[in-house]
Amino acid sequence: MRVLALGDVVGQAGCDMVRRHLPRLRQEEGVDFCVVNGENSAEGNGILPSSAKQLFDAGADVITTGNHGLRRREINDLLDQNTGLLRPANYHPSAHGFGWYLYDMLSYQVAVINLQGTVYLDNIENPFAWIDRMLDTIDARIKIVDFHAEATSEKLALSYYLDGRVSLLFGTHTHVQTADERIYPGGMGYITDLGMCGPSESVLGVRPELAIRRLSTHLPTRFENADGPCHLCGIVADIDEKSGKTTKITRIEIK
Amino acid sequence: MRVLALGDVVGQAGCDMVRRHLPRLRQEEGVDFCVVNGENSAEGNGILPSSAKQLFDAGADVITTGNHGLRRREINDLLDQNTGLLRPANYHPSAHGFGWYLYDMLSYQVAVINLQGTVYLDNIENPFAWIDRMLDTIDARIKIVDFHAEATSEKLALSYYLDGRVSLLFGTHTHVQTADERIYPGGMGYITDLGMCGPSESVLGVRPELAIRRLSTHLPTRFENADGPCHLCGIVADIDEKSGKTTKITRIEIK
Amino acid sequence: MRVLALGDVVGQAGCDMVRRHLPRLRQEEGVDFCVVNGENSAEGNGILPSSAKQLFDAGADVITTGNHGLRRREINDLLDQNTGLLRPANYHPSAHGFGWYLYDMLSYQVAVINLQGTVYLDNIENPFAWIDRMLDTIDARIKIVDFHAEATSEKLALSYYLDGRVSLLFGTHTHVQTADERIYPGGMGYITDLGMCGPSESVLGVRPELAIRRLSTHLPTRFENADGPCHLCGIVADIDEKSGKTTKITRIEIK
Amino acid sequence: MRVLALGDVVGQAGCDMVRRHLPRLRQEEGVDFCVVNGENSAEGNGILPSSAKQLFDAGADVITTGNHGLRRREINDLLDQNTGLLRPANYHPSAHGFGWYLYDMLSYQVAVINLQGTVYLDNIENPFAWIDRMLDTIDARIKIVDFHAEATSEKLALSYYLDGRVSLLFGTHTHVQTADERIYPGGMGYITDLGMCGPSESVLGVRPELAIRRLSTHLPTRFENADGPCHLCGIVADIDEKSGKTTKITRIEIK
Ligand SMILES: [Fe+2]
Ligand SMILES: [Fe+2]
Ligand SMILES: [Fe+2]
Ligand SMILES: [Fe+2]
Ligand SMILES: [Fe+2]
Ligand SMILES: [Fe+2]
Ligand SMILES: [Fe+2]
Ligand SMILES: [Fe+2]
Repeated sequence: MRVLALGDVVGQAGCDMVRRHLPRLRQEEGVDFCVVNGENSAEGNGILPSSAKQLFDAGADVITTGNHGLRRREINDLLDQNTGLLRPANYHPSAHGFGWYLYDMLSYQVAVINLQGTVYLDNIENPFAWIDRMLDTIDARIKIVDFHAEATSEKLALSYYLDGRVSLLFGTHTHVQTADERIYPGGMGYITDLGMCGPSESVLGVRPELAIRRLSTHLPTRFENADGPCHLCGIVADIDEKSGKTTKITRIEIK
Repeated sequence: MRVLALGDVVGQAGCDMVRRHLPRLRQEEGVDFCVVNGENSAEGNGILPSSAKQLFDAGADVITTGNHGLRRREINDLLDQNTGLLRPANYHPSAHGFGWYLYDMLSYQVAVINLQGTVYLDNIENPFAWIDRMLDTIDARIKIVDFHAEATSEKLALSYYLDGRVSLLFGTHTHVQTADERIYPGGMGYITDLGMCGPSESVLGVRPELAIRRLSTHLPTRFENADGPCHLCGIVADIDEKSGKTTKITRIEIK
Repeated sequence: MRVLALGDVVGQAGCDMVRRHLPRLRQEEGVDFCVVNGENSAEGNGILPSSAKQLFDAGADVITTGNHGLRRREINDLLDQNTGLLRPANYHPSAHGFGWYLYDMLSYQVAVINLQGTVYLDNIENPFAWIDRMLDTIDARIKIVDFHAEATSEKLALSYYLDGRVSLLFGTHTHVQTADERIYPGGMGYITDLGMCGPSESVLGVRPELAIRRLSTHLPTRFENADGPCHLCGIVADIDEKSGKTTKITRIEIK
Repeated sequence: MRVLALGDVVGQAGCDMVRRHLPRLRQEEGVDFCVVNGENSAEGNGILPSSAKQLFDAGADVITTGNHGLRRREINDLLDQNTGLLRPANYHPSAHGFGWYLYDMLSYQVAVINLQGTVYLDNIENPFAWIDRMLDTIDARIKIVDFHAEATSEKLALSYYLDGRVSLLFGTHTHVQTADERIYPGGMGYITDLGMCGPSESVLGVRPELAIRRLSTHLPTRFENADGPCHLCGIVADIDEKSGKTTKITRIEIK
């Protein structure tokens, strides 16, 4: 099967970019399954039912999120309906929604698991502990993990921990695509970060002068998304349905 | 002029990798000037006179460092001699060594400036403030900045702040090469992170099982560098000596 | 002169507590000068012109703030009018308002200086650097410092740095009064934290169940101030007007 | 029963202070049970068998620790012997030692539980989650908790969470005694921090000039404990053996 994974979608411009390119990409590239990280897809950050709908309608089979995913209360109902919109699985059990999703491809199952890191982020359940506790209870030949995390050390450490146990592990959250895509000895496809979908002349989607102001003065600064050209970043991976191993992984950036 | 910049060199394996490839690269690629980040080049982390010597002997014209650069006292004398080994310029004035270096290319001068970020790192002088205070006092047609920082937001924000004022800005510290190399409208070459030089089957150079242990248990865990295959990561950039603008930037990874 | 200093006032309940007790305290205790930290005095956090007015009207001569002080834009004008409402002095020069205030006691001047720590807080200018750069330019026989900081290490370190150079140094921000009030060899009165003015059955002013929820689940939780009984915490210090030295310091907690 | 609890003992000077005063205090005050936090009792930080022995010999029935407790490998055997030396209970299950201890007072049992906070500290198991999972499995009429934590918010939140379920909760780690000792409605004695035992002219035990240097320059600075006068800080609490409720709590500071 061919999997397309897209990094953090930022604002309406990012949604537009996904709507413009995803249907075409699915067709041209013969994509069987698509995961999109939507944690910043709403204007003003977070995700809303309206931005989630755009991503699903454009062709996302599963939407993952991260540290901004629960920011808007309006998303709670959709999270609870368990229709393919995820929040990190290692959140507190009382959190709205679900952390993994089983997608039925008829002849096999695909599990998408959303995890969040704890280095430089909230002290939620340790992602390694979550894996130890839960991974084997998920019955699917193909397992895809979105690890939403800041530190390269945590992402790489989890990659060595999961090789041989999942099909594909990609990182999100830093909004900058890394150049280290590869296949591990145990057959796991990996990249440290997918990058983002949204304004390319920006600081993670935000207007540069506002990010500069906040970081140089530490004074209260309201963020706005940047205008201008956009890009769409992610990977295409081929996973063997029998073995669950990745056979090919390619970075994509569309401008 | 053609500039080669190499990311954080890790341990003796990283130094060996630089010694094996740098002389050849300089020749084959027609490199005029080479910057290497050596903050982890000593076994046991930091930099020592012996690891610095290896990097200089192999062809580094300037060595930059970062948050691990002052870890070993034995390096203080070499830092004070001001012979091309730098520590971040925005350190406290009482720190050993110097934060920028003027290299005489006879017909023009090249300044290399080493800065360190403050997001998720020590509360040193704000790098934007340092730039405002000092950049114009540095008289060189070509200015190259190594911004040693963790957060992609801080690296990208500084990039927009410096475009048009420096020739080349590259990030270091995360040890994972990013895929976002490009030339800004004002002629500045940029990449968020060069990546590292050292063991490729590792977590930032460290044996994976030790990184996994520390991150999954938070118990005291002594780090050791990994064995096995190495890679060498960085960029090659062409800078016009008249205008000081970058005309081409290419990522390299040698295995 | 007798100085009364009150810790972080929280919400309307805290303002009410100050209005009820401060006029009486000034009279009964023979207080000559009163400093109040108002960074949380507005409902919903921060400080507003209305909450500042209540504190001034109740008898505050100078109001200090801290990391929440600039949260509400409506306070910017009052900060800029320089009438005794301060924000931390080591903020970026472009911040609204002023960081120290000279109060004319006719026969002598009292300077109140507001500083903010950087450990576990924003990476603003180092408070020790600010002191080195600015303290001697402030011409007043009596200098009082509110050091708004989290870590006991930073507060204590600054205390040793300032003894002999200021009359009185008190900490704020943790909302819990410490029991270490004392006079240093150089004549500086000191306490690590004044404590708070507001709901006493609370977590720093907040309803306990909400603080428990946020800290135990790390899920989005809107804070509300607690109801119920209040207390008012601070110190009374006697400072010799000739020498500028503190001769007596006493903790107060009024329920 | 009368309980004496002493805050973080720092270095040999702190051990000497405990040896000089604890036997006398036990006798004069009629102390039945004594808990001492020893996480910094070894010279050079951490705890060693030799410093633990001094504290036990002086009269500590149980020694608690915290974030520095596992720093020295030499302590692992003693931790594993389970003879009253604890490390935080919410550490990873693979950690050496035990997190709570049952002390047999013949007619009743006393449990001492050691927990560590996660705000500004390592991302270990959430202390609230540990309580939910484990507290009811500990069968003792009297339960005493040492919560080793940085943030006043986390300490206070846990206090409201535990009132009615434990007899006594005291905080450690900040090394500065707080003035908020009290008895909660459910009968739990509480104080946010016991303070420390060791050099009183110091920054948490460290020579002030070294703490000032590190905090003002962020350059590598080796810490040494301060000389000079010492103090010993803690509380005395009376707990009713039938109800397990605290009936009296008094701060102590001995110079
Ligand atoms: Fe994001
Ligand atoms: Fe994120
Ligand atoms: Fe490094
Ligand atoms: Fe680094
Ligand atoms: Fe406050
Ligand atoms: Fe504050
Ligand atoms: Fe301690
Ligand atoms: Fe501690």
